[in-house]
Amino acid sequence: MLIHSAAQLLTLKGGPQRGHALGTLGIIENGAVVVRDEKIVAVGDTEDLRNSYPNEPTIDASGSVVMPGFVDPHTHLVWAGDRADEFDKKMAGKPYLEILAEGGGIISTVMATRTASLESLTAQTRQRTQRMFEYGTTTAEAKTGYGLQLDTELRLLQTLIDLDREGPLELAITFLGAHAIPPEYKDNPQGYTDEITKRMLPELKDWWGTNAPHMDLPFVDVFCEHNAFTHKQSRQILTQACSLGFPIKIHADEFKNLGGASLAAELGAASADHLVSTSEADIATLAKSETVAVSLPCTPFGLAEKDYTPAHKFIKANAYFALASDCNPGTSWNESMQFVIALACRMLKLTSAQAIAASTINSAYAIRREDHIGSIEEGKQADILVMDIPDYRQIGYRYGTNLVKQVMKRGKLL
Amino acid sequence: MLIHSAAQLLTLKGGPQRGHALGTLGIIENGAVVVRDEKIVAVGDTEDLRNSYPNEPTIDASGSVVMPGFVDPHTHLVWAGDRADEFDKKMAGKPYLEILAEGGGIISTVMATRTASLESLTAQTRQRTQRMFEYGTTTAEAKTGYGLQLDTELRLLQTLIDLDREGPLELAITFLGAHAIPPEYKDNPQGYTDEITKRMLPELKDWWGTNAPHMDLPFVDVFCEHNAFTHKQSRQILTQACSLGFPIKIHADEFKNLGGASLAAELGAASADHLVSTSEADIATLAKSETVAVSLPCTPFGLAEKDYTPAHKFIKANAYFALASDCNPGTSWNESMQFVIALACRMLKLTSAQAIAASTINSAYAIRREDHIGSIEEGKQADILVMDIPDYRQIGYRYGTNLVKQVMKRGKLL
Repeated sequence: MLIHSAAQLLTLKGGPQRGHALGTLGIIENGAVVVRDEKIVAVGDTEDLRNSYPNEPTIDASGSVVMPGFVDPHTHLVWAGDRADEFDKKMAGKPYLEILAEGGGIISTVMATRTASLESLTAQTRQRTQRMFEYGTTTAEAKTGYGLQLDTELRLLQTLIDLDREGPLELAITFLGAHAIPPEYKDNPQGYTDEITKRMLPELKDWWGTNAPHMDLPFVDVFCEHNAFTHKQSRQILTQACSLGFPIKIHADEFKNLGGASLAAELGAASADHLVSTSEADIATLAKSETVAVSLPCTPFGLAEKDYTPAHKFIKANAYFALASDCNPGTSWNESMQFVIALACRMLKLTSAQAIAASTINSAYAIRREDHIGSIEEGKQADILVMDIPDYRQIGYRYGTNLVKQVMKRGKLL
Repeated sequence: MLIHSAAQLLTLKGGPQRGHALGTLGIIENGAVVVRDEKIVAVGDTEDLRNSYPNEPTIDASGSVVMPGFVDPHTHLVWAGDRADEFDKKMAGKPYLEILAEGGGIISTVMATRTASLESLTAQTRQRTQRMFEYGTTTAEAKTGYGLQLDTELRLLQTLIDLDREGPLELAITFLGAHAIPPEYKDNPQGYTDEITKRMLPELKDWWGTNAPHMDLPFVDVFCEHNAFTHKQSRQILTQACSLGFPIKIHADEFKNLGGASLAAELGAASADHLVSTSEADIATLAKSETVAVSLPCTPFGLAEKDYTPAHKFIKANAYFALASDCNPGTSWNESMQFVIALACRMLKLTSAQAIAASTINSAYAIRREDHIGSIEEGKQADILVMDIPDYRQIGYRYGTNLVKQVMKRGKLL
């Protein structure tokens, strides 16, 4: 298959982009890509590739931008129910603590999720994975975390394993048993921390070996935040995860600076996510590591809050910077990475090029899949978008609608 | 045609909603609508209508919200080219005055538009009207204003007349010759004001009678703002428009309070639009009139500005309040009223119900078509959406993607 005549082919070649390198798109005008089976076999000028591959079936991408599929490195995709009612109350001014007292908030999603069957969870989550795919996300990280008890958490993992196998969206799965303190432990957070480290993580490792032997171990993630897990508890969980061989991630500094970003760097986490209130010292520490700084601008947007990740501080400090949707039922039900990019341009003051690199090659690095996705290079998996726009900057400039014309996953046009 | 079993049928019945009445959705659970030819002939409970209309072809809307098509009462849909390049520069911190000095800004769109043919303008604008329709807008107001000279302005009107006839999007057309001071008059704004009142408006009236005898006269609109048209110039233009029989609108108080809202009320404008910096006195004056207050939250969002229309002040003062996209190439290229609603909930603190009423029956009133669109009532035009959600509040709560399942315009499913 020869995709040819792209007005702009964005290759994003050369690996993850650190610091001020962010935004290097590797543009080929009148570009083309040759795909065989699941892989990219050639990238270059349209006339050159037409001559080298004269008998290939073709896709005419003239007037279009061709680029790698979006990689969304932070989502909470698997849940039951919705919280539309609660959203309306919040917008009308009701304080979150009152909503919690009425049984709303994250615990309402936990209760709905615990009672949902595997079939129901799969059906509800599939609507979201399909929507992500229609909007150009070809790989997404997806976390558990609305079970907060082992059997439900394993059911959520099973849902994600099944949906990854079903495709077309490829999933990078994360165990987030440490998403919140469950009601059973509300007066004993340390007890729940011990439950995770002493029981859940070892059992998860066994379960995974039996139920998903074809896949690498999932990430283990912790919500390190005031009213969730302290710095010390986060360290306890992540250290145990590392010792069992799990790769790790962390929710850090969404509201308060508890030092989660430095902890991520110290323990070699793949990413530290949120990073709204990170201190200068923690930014410097993170930026010296291989941990990717992942910003989730939809979260403050979804809640109508004013503070966003200070993206340029991370870039200036030479960090790897990426973007994610944080798609979840409480703060931000949005599946589109295109909107994340448009929002990041406005609120984080990124150029379209920076936001695109942060949503492809750098977000692939945030889930440690940069070796096979996130760019259009020979040998990589053929995850490719044909966008209905002549200039990549329209992805930042326009917003609110879907600019994707065609999505190819592993060489298949869908 | 019987559309039946809607989880929620939002009728919006009872006419435009003033002040605190805003948000009265008139919900029928398990609701149904009967459509014959272009019209709604019955609205009610599914079992009742099934019994009364046993032989009707059916559309099963179970699990869905059924509601009136969105009415977008303020757009600048017809232009040539784009300003993606300029957007990136703005996000990188370049001041707008420098962009203007480099030939960017509105004048770059004017130059591209003046040299575009009717065919080219029609093709470019059609992409936007189609996109609006896919996102559930069944009627939109559309302004000229990137010609700023009579022949181009008439070509823009012709484009809109042609696209309205072609459908499916229904257009309410507005002449906005007074959008900006054209380069030819940059040192003589009063000269351009006189050109509009003495030459353009009378010629427009003749031209319209010849070229669009089947349509009512278009609205005449003025951008009453610092660096555009003064209060006095705006009054001159609008008074002349009224005396020629044109209905009027006004861009008021986007940045500075020049008293445009009171002028709108005094002259009986259908709407006053933007209203970010309107004074308390002007809000009170507007609220006593039949002029609809139209807020365009995508404009500050598109520009990443902090100030939005103080919606609750208008509601409290008993004004008619509506929402629009302001779709345009400079500040906000977004075709989706769903996104406008999601944004208005967050930034204007509207409930989903208020934002929906402001985007249907009240926005229909802002273009004075509330007699035949904007609600699901017997005798009205069958402009109906089937939304892929079980609860209307998801339109505010979720964002960034298209929640429309089916769009019906004048009884035809498209």
